[in-house]
Amino acid sequence: MIVGSILALDIGGTKLAGAVVGPSGSVTERVMRPTPATHDENALFAGVLEVLAGGRHKGGIDAVGVGCGGPMEPGGGRVSPLNIPAWRGFPLRSRLADELGLPTFVDNDAKALALGEGWLGAAAGHRDFIALVVSTGVGGGIVLDGRLLDGAAGNAGHIGHVIVEPGGRLCACGARGCLEAEASGPSLAAITGQEAASASPDVVERTGTLVGRAVASVTNLLDLPLAVAGGSVALGFGAPFFAAAQAELDRSCRLDFSRGARIVPAALGADGGLVGAAAVARRGLTLAHGRPVST
Amino acid sequence: MIVGSILALDIGGTKLAGAVVGPSGSVTERVMRPTPATHDENALFAGVLEVLAGGRHKGGIDAVGVGCGGPMEPGGGRVSPLNIPAWRGFPLRSRLADELGLPTFVDNDAKALALGEGWLGAAAGHRDFIALVVSTGVGGGIVLDGRLLDGAAGNAGHIGHVIVEPGGRLCACGARGCLEAEASGPSLAAITGQEAASASPDVVERTGTLVGRAVASVTNLLDLPLAVAGGSVALGFGAPFFAAAQAELDRSCRLDFSRGARIVPAALGADGGLVGAAAVARRGLTLAHGRPVST
Repeated sequence: MIVGSILALDIGGTKLAGAVVGPSGSVTERVMRPTPATHDENALFAGVLEVLAGGRHKGGIDAVGVGCGGPMEPGGGRVSPLNIPAWRGFPLRSRLADELGLPTFVDNDAKALALGEGWLGAAAGHRDFIALVVSTGVGGGIVLDGRLLDGAAGNAGHIGHVIVEPGGRLCACGARGCLEAEASGPSLAAITGQEAASASPDVVERTGTLVGRAVASVTNLLDLPLAVAGGSVALGFGAPFFAAAQAELDRSCRLDFSRGARIVPAALGADGGLVGAAAVARRGLTLAHGRPVST
Repeated sequence: MIVGSILALDIGGTKLAGAVVGPSGSVTERVMRPTPATHDENALFAGVLEVLAGGRHKGGIDAVGVGCGGPMEPGGGRVSPLNIPAWRGFPLRSRLADELGLPTFVDNDAKALALGEGWLGAAAGHRDFIALVVSTGVGGGIVLDGRLLDGAAGNAGHIGHVIVEPGGRLCACGARGCLEAEASGPSLAAITGQEAASASPDVVERTGTLVGRAVASVTNLLDLPLAVAGGSVALGFGAPFFAAAQAELDRSCRLDFSRGARIVPAALGADGGLVGAAAVARRGLTLAHGRPVST
């Protein structure tokens, strides 16, 4: 099917963004604001609607696409974003659909990023890749055989809990040595006693190596030759981080099919969340019509 | 579509097996023989045809399904099984199709096992699981969202090269600390100086823990709550191995969606390879007809 424009919504713990994303990925009617500091689920929902003010009355819009922090029910029927305490089991999809009168599709922000990077970013044209976010948390989304993986409860791609240091640092999840416990911003701050942004070259290199180790395991496991990394830690650390991660991939991806695997920076920048949210709706519309899914 | 009987072929480094597998998984006309010790690709192919002698002239057969050691081209157009030196780039699928005059589908034996266990074994009725083989090598196949994963070159599921001991033992692949380098039969023999079958309780427990660690990473990554393990090491070690692996899953799968993940023994036993091979053909026929794939 041919998909028109999408009303896109990116819901994070620190900011909300809304826009209209056109069929070729153009982003217009962009509105952003800090996420309201409220414990009232309806006040927060009103804030969400405000960032759609620029686009919601435009013509030619086929659907609403949303990327939101997890966890959530599969399909985003009810969301409980870790960093947004006002919403616990909030019926986001139905509230938006009722309010806007459009088909509405919700997925977690890391899977949205993967769809966005596969549509128009660093993984464009690739059928097999992981997109990961190294930031306050460490998450990801995986496209394999040209399809976004969902998993039993919709959380496939959660690379933050691949074990990279057996017996290592205690993770918020309760396990030890998860990638998130060793490489997220708050983890780095706890390990080094200073903000991730001030990390020493050694810490940057270790973080890149550990991310590379998790990606190497994923590459070998899934026969998936490309990783796209975004998030404030990965992009903030920049070239030395990516060099260390790539060096670890070169050391640990040695099978015929995994040799040559690459890790590259996410390409969509600040609009990645909105483009990804639009891609969630494009996927949903395509699945709903029973056609093959392109990403 | 309704699939009839399948002419099934299980090609391994030590034995060849052929049979007719009925629509409900019944295995008849079973013929087994040692894999001929030859370097002549055609002599080996003649040996393969011999194990099909019982079934190839039966009526009601819709297709040929083959599980074979890897590596191979995606779809098994050309196979180069690591443990069968006579075949290097051997055009197995076209040779069988020409000889037998039936649609022919080839996949690697670990992916075949996953399909078989999902059809009639320990993962029957599950849409999200990994099946792994811990034996001379360590391999696997993954069914996610109800579909067998292929990956860019057809090797998805290769859990043997998930890193479980960073900086650990050098793997045949060239990396360090891969699961296969720490837990395969030959690796255990090299580590302990005795055959895996004589391993001490400590070695059995460590092997189970390391397999559990790799499975925990996969469970957290893919939101996949069930692992089915077969192969001579896993099944030979038995209950203490599975207890250690499960204990590691309990320690390391702590997310809302991964808590409670289980690892259980493969259920199909000696017929697993043949049932899996038949499942490869059933999948192939279903995909070829453009219908949704059940596994």
